[in-house]
Amino acid sequence: MAEIPYKIYLEETEMPTAWYNMRADMKVKPAPLLNPGTGKPMTAEELGGVFCEELVKQELDNDNRWVEIPQEIRDFYRMYRPSPLVRAYCLEKKLDTPAKIYYKFEGNNTSGSHKLNSAIAQAYYAKKQGLKGVTTETGAGQWGTALSMACAYLELDCKVYMVKVSYEQKPFRREVMRTYGAEVTPSPSMTTQVGRKILEEFPGTTGSLGCAISEAVEAATSQPGYRYVLGSVLNQVLLHQSVIGLETKAALDKYGVHPDIIIGCAGGGSNLGGLIAPFMGEKLRGEADYRIVAVEPASCPSFTRGVFAYDFCDTGMICPLAKMYTLGSGFIPAPNHAGGLRFHGMSGILSQLYHDGFMEAVSVPQTKVFEAAEAFARVEGILPAPESAHAIRAAMDEAMKCRETGEAKTIVFGLTGTGYFDMVAYEKYHDGKMDDYIPTDEDLKKALEKLPKVAEA
Amino acid sequence: MAEIPYKIYLEETEMPTAWYNMRADMKVKPAPLLNPGTGKPMTAEELGGVFCEELVKQELDNDNRWVEIPQEIRDFYRMYRPSPLVRAYCLEKKLDTPAKIYYKFEGNNTSGSHKLNSAIAQAYYAKKQGLKGVTTETGAGQWGTALSMACAYLELDCKVYMVKVSYEQKPFRREVMRTYGAEVTPSPSMTTQVGRKILEEFPGTTGSLGCAISEAVEAATSQPGYRYVLGSVLNQVLLHQSVIGLETKAALDKYGVHPDIIIGCAGGGSNLGGLIAPFMGEKLRGEADYRIVAVEPASCPSFTRGVFAYDFCDTGMICPLAKMYTLGSGFIPAPNHAGGLRFHGMSGILSQLYHDGFMEAVSVPQTKVFEAAEAFARVEGILPAPESAHAIRAAMDEAMKCRETGEAKTIVFGLTGTGYFDMVAYEKYHDGKMDDYIPTDEDLKKALEKLPKVAEA
Repeated sequence: MAEIPYKIYLEETEMPTAWYNMRADMKVKPAPLLNPGTGKPMTAEELGGVFCEELVKQELDNDNRWVEIPQEIRDFYRMYRPSPLVRAYCLEKKLDTPAKIYYKFEGNNTSGSHKLNSAIAQAYYAKKQGLKGVTTETGAGQWGTALSMACAYLELDCKVYMVKVSYEQKPFRREVMRTYGAEVTPSPSMTTQVGRKILEEFPGTTGSLGCAISEAVEAATSQPGYRYVLGSVLNQVLLHQSVIGLETKAALDKYGVHPDIIIGCAGGGSNLGGLIAPFMGEKLRGEADYRIVAVEPASCPSFTRGVFAYDFCDTGMICPLAKMYTLGSGFIPAPNHAGGLRFHGMSGILSQLYHDGFMEAVSVPQTKVFEAAEAFARVEGILPAPESAHAIRAAMDEAMKCRETGEAKTIVFGLTGTGYFDMVAYEKYHDGKMDDYIPTDEDLKKALEKLPKVAEA
Repeated sequence: MAEIPYKIYLEETEMPTAWYNMRADMKVKPAPLLNPGTGKPMTAEELGGVFCEELVKQELDNDNRWVEIPQEIRDFYRMYRPSPLVRAYCLEKKLDTPAKIYYKFEGNNTSGSHKLNSAIAQAYYAKKQGLKGVTTETGAGQWGTALSMACAYLELDCKVYMVKVSYEQKPFRREVMRTYGAEVTPSPSMTTQVGRKILEEFPGTTGSLGCAISEAVEAATSQPGYRYVLGSVLNQVLLHQSVIGLETKAALDKYGVHPDIIIGCAGGGSNLGGLIAPFMGEKLRGEADYRIVAVEPASCPSFTRGVFAYDFCDTGMICPLAKMYTLGSGFIPAPNHAGGLRFHGMSGILSQLYHDGFMEAVSVPQTKVFEAAEAFARVEGILPAPESAHAIRAAMDEAMKCRETGEAKTIVFGLTGTGYFDMVAYEKYHDGKMDDYIPTDEDLKKALEKLPKVAEA
């Protein structure tokens, strides 16, 4: 076998031509989305008012194992993909571990993360349906940036509702979106009914993701030619993100490498679901075994401390109900939390897989995450996004266990993005102003009080 | 010939193992640096007080065509190199041009630019000499970031004097350097004699690059175990940056592509000198011909409106004199200038080549530069640094000429870096607050009044 290079790049001819749909191989399928009014599964027609047609099909498709990637999307992927699978030789040396560490680096594009993989797909189907544009919300801004880039490429209108506090505190993210021609509105705003209502009730509010979702959904459904798009959680998003895992597996196979442990950070679950997809497929079909580990912040621990139940996806409680690991739709991480991955719930697919024992989950406190981020940056050169650094932390911990046991395990983790727009958080860490508040059992119990009562089908 | 992929990545085995020294093929060598006190050429011994030994050798070496890249530096290069040579299919389509456009993208590393290629080399030689650390200055912060990364990797001490106004207005750059363990001091500071003197004279000053250079040089020469390093202008820096051009040429040769025009932005000249190196070599040896074009800001036009003369490299007038195209060491671009490339002079090597007719130069106004940057970002996905966008502008202009003439010329340009830390400038552009002040002949005449009088050898 040839020596493993620092970075494995697939040839363009080796890039995936179809996305892989894990649901086809799941014996227990993820539970359907429910209409919050009727409690019945959302129909394609109901979903079609919010999402465009092809994406509704993908959302509901539990059967087809492969979904062809349209040529136009593959052309766009070629602008920034394949992403490199990097052998972390320098990190291994630094940790003095016999473990072999690889990471799939998704940050080498201007959106700074893996989000672009689904943004271009969702924008493409909207364009194909003849729509004028799409609306979405963004918090930190990675998803909004990715969608802006995709829409600029396709000459599609893009309206982004950005949580007001981020809009004001992260003007650079906003300017990147404007560079790509997006209309960025601080939320809550006077441009929607729900925004006006919230501003009337809470005049000084700096907004929340839940509120921005509500405004984006209203903006999409209240004018002809628009649909709403979402950057994580949904089945369709995990489908698109499977390109990460497919490339990773192809690169490993090329060098005959079988990973023992696959690690990804998890907020809504799109990166993790994408990274593990083909490996999980083999596991579900009984063809191979892997340890698969989700890493979440100790301050927002939906897998490790949440419940598996139907819940609202948004704090505004206007979106369909999803069965997932959740902390309650009213849960908000402590204000000192700087590491992203703030969503109160988790992808329905991943929730079912976790519930059925196909994967593990760990939670990590944020100072340990930033410690890992800095150590990684110094030897591997890449400044990671705090989100990604959760996976680094867990990978380093596994590698250090190997140092103790002497095992030469192969560890693969997802490095989802870069931290160029997260320097305020790094500054807090450098200045010793970061702490590790972890929600109490009492906090969690209280947040779950508003869980909707649903009679499951 | 195989179809040209979007991105050409060399295999690790195809990467350069030696830097190429253009001076070996120049019939007229660049003029030597002069001691500002004696007016005589700087000796190796004199230079050795400021720079480390191996770098002094490289600075003075007009003869050796190839300088082997030490294995340790090649290992570091493998962390982020080879950089891709991208075929700008989407830009070509957008411009509806028969031209074939390629760009060498150096922004896919955390320093965000090509600066890392020389930073690791300079840090390596300092480490090899057994030094404790290095000092430098940084304005916008790309060079400081690159040097911090290199020093973190080699566990070398790194002291960065950052122009105070940048230190305060660009806290994110500062935090990236801190992440890599660098000591970042706003300049002028109380840590040096020259800093204290300036603060006494001008208590409210926000600093300048010239002042930061003076402090960095003093900090290096006033304590044992330190040397000063510089990110551009010097012969040694162009030597290290030749890795850009060597990779570019290898990638083009692999697909049998002969470029007609090679375009690079030029501030101090390190990127341009690196990109063109092997092509210029062929031209100097009469083996091939290329149009080679330097692009500079209209607000800081050293090639197009400066004089070819000995001048100080710093505004503090403590560094050796270099013969170069210069606007005068006191020249400062208009405050509205946001596009970087602010140095008043130009690499001695490039100055001689320009003087001898081996290359052309154009200057471009900044609103046209940002217009090109935005158009490029929207179709090619990458948010360029304003510096890099000067080359984009010129490449687009050449491609549009091809549309008119119907010529299918092959254009290669250098995309030196990303603009993630330049969003204040983009914001100005979006808000229509950017203008195109161009210095008057009177301005330029005045700045040249302090040109030192040197009797050339």
